[in-house]
Amino acid sequence: MSTDLQQRLSRLKELIQPGLIAYAPEQEPRSLYEPMRYSLSGGGKQLRPLFLLLSCEAVGGCSRDALPAALALELVHNFTLVHDDIMDHDELRHGRETVYKKWEESTAILAGDALLVQAFRALAGVEAALLPRVLAGFTAGILEVCEGQAQDKEFELRASVTLDEYYGMIAKKTGRLFSLACEIGGLLGHGTEQQVQGLAEFGACLGRAFQIQDDVLDLVSDKAMLGKDIGSDIRENKKTFLMAYLFQYGAQEQQQQIRRLAEKNELSREELQLAAAAFTAAGALPAAETEIKRCITLAETALQPIEEEARNPLILMLTALAKRKF
Amino acid sequence: MSTDLQQRLSRLKELIQPGLIAYAPEQEPRSLYEPMRYSLSGGGKQLRPLFLLLSCEAVGGCSRDALPAALALELVHNFTLVHDDIMDHDELRHGRETVYKKWEESTAILAGDALLVQAFRALAGVEAALLPRVLAGFTAGILEVCEGQAQDKEFELRASVTLDEYYGMIAKKTGRLFSLACEIGGLLGHGTEQQVQGLAEFGACLGRAFQIQDDVLDLVSDKAMLGKDIGSDIRENKKTFLMAYLFQYGAQEQQQQIRRLAEKNELSREELQLAAAAFTAAGALPAAETEIKRCITLAETALQPIEEEARNPLILMLTALAKRKF
Repeated sequence: MSTDLQQRLSRLKELIQPGLIAYAPEQEPRSLYEPMRYSLSGGGKQLRPLFLLLSCEAVGGCSRDALPAALALELVHNFTLVHDDIMDHDELRHGRETVYKKWEESTAILAGDALLVQAFRALAGVEAALLPRVLAGFTAGILEVCEGQAQDKEFELRASVTLDEYYGMIAKKTGRLFSLACEIGGLLGHGTEQQVQGLAEFGACLGRAFQIQDDVLDLVSDKAMLGKDIGSDIRENKKTFLMAYLFQYGAQEQQQQIRRLAEKNELSREELQLAAAAFTAAGALPAAETEIKRCITLAETALQPIEEEARNPLILMLTALAKRKF
Repeated sequence: MSTDLQQRLSRLKELIQPGLIAYAPEQEPRSLYEPMRYSLSGGGKQLRPLFLLLSCEAVGGCSRDALPAALALELVHNFTLVHDDIMDHDELRHGRETVYKKWEESTAILAGDALLVQAFRALAGVEAALLPRVLAGFTAGILEVCEGQAQDKEFELRASVTLDEYYGMIAKKTGRLFSLACEIGGLLGHGTEQQVQGLAEFGACLGRAFQIQDDVLDLVSDKAMLGKDIGSDIRENKKTFLMAYLFQYGAQEQQQQIRRLAEKNELSREELQLAAAAFTAAGALPAAETEIKRCITLAETALQPIEEEARNPLILMLTALAKRKF
């Protein structure tokens, strides 16, 4: 990533972080605002608000005008993390205890609720003329995220899912917020209808690439770098890209290997290597890489309605993301 | 209540119920929409949307214009019930199992989340010119409800609270949604600023009366009529009006009696009678009645800016509520 873009991202993050924290002030009741602040200062990558602001700038808008929506989206993202961690029994996030683990479930439920409410408070700051459309898109999008999470949980109870079912689920659970980020950024930057559609499509492809990569990293990354438990997807019987691919194309033997490992509560380093070997033998790991590359090409193509120089920051961010190791 | 008003309420309910159910369609994923539909068809009294629509009509507005906001408020109310039941370990509501009990916690967390999102989708249908103000009031109100719930949970861990602390908590947890209902109804009916303020005050007083009565009914009502567990407040060490009053004005002996009962997991009929006797001896039950009457008078007074005939339905509803036994 160029120094120029890095400076630009730093400048945008300096807008985002204090804006976020203002939604979890140091006030009573502490049992509500402390876990919210903890979640918002967890050192997330703030990808969604960054993509929203860059999308706004890409169509010639001023990122300050899009800040309320960017904050709203990051608040929504934090809401999903706090609640999903309860549902998925995840104890670590960004190298720290998750909210429900550090406090307790009731506290995490309520803190997540309040983060979602704050998202809508932030959104109320959007330009009045655009508010009805932004609110409608925003709410429809978050509902899809809930649908995606529900499907993800339903899939855990199933022996297998097809790749198409997997793609449908992650389009909602992960893709929708990225797509929403870029779409709303374009809207608030007063882009043309074609540009806004292109940005939405860009975000959807980006989200798909991001989730497949996330699935791969759960298996092959270092716990210390990822800041969360490795192999938790297998343990929770999550239907990741690797799983869906294995059950669609893998040999019986490879499928049985993974089913055996999925029954365990903890996976040792050796067992993780066994899992990786089964996925590799089934061709799932290279298939993931191929699909990520395909999504990146699609994402780039979707940006055609935007002037070449203007779309560069988005493409640079996308490329940098595709290389991430955590 | 007059037959005239009863017919009017039936007519309004015929608008509300199908409107609500439309937000939980029979579609996939079932694990999301089924518990939502279950919650929305639980036979609640739909007081908040009714007060919103009546408030709109009271200032000369058309209740159809206020329907999106009325549905939004009832969706919010259902969201709070589904999540609060998890936090409060309540297994019965309106005579049926609560959502987390019938399904499981994860399902109830997500169904509650989606109900809140649907509330904002409904709200997006509000007249565009009023949307920024309505959205700002709505979100600030729901945040206060979250604060009230957090305080309620914090109070459970404390030995005692003062009556003032109790009033502060219920103003947020219960009063705020009633106040919001009447305020937004007035706004959408294009009432004067004075009328809108008066309606907000009316709702706040109504909410206080309603919650104090709820606290009393938890102790003295019949389980069958109330449709939920009796004595659960004492068991959960909830700081109700009766508790706050007892700890502020009761004798040591009465306080110890209640503390002993609060340590139990189940309360027998005899133990409930012991509790009622302690609260009566401390004067808490008659004090509750006095405070409810005072709130009703205040609520009536708050409606002064509204023409006498127009405010009658609100006052009749208020009076009917104050006499409820469940």
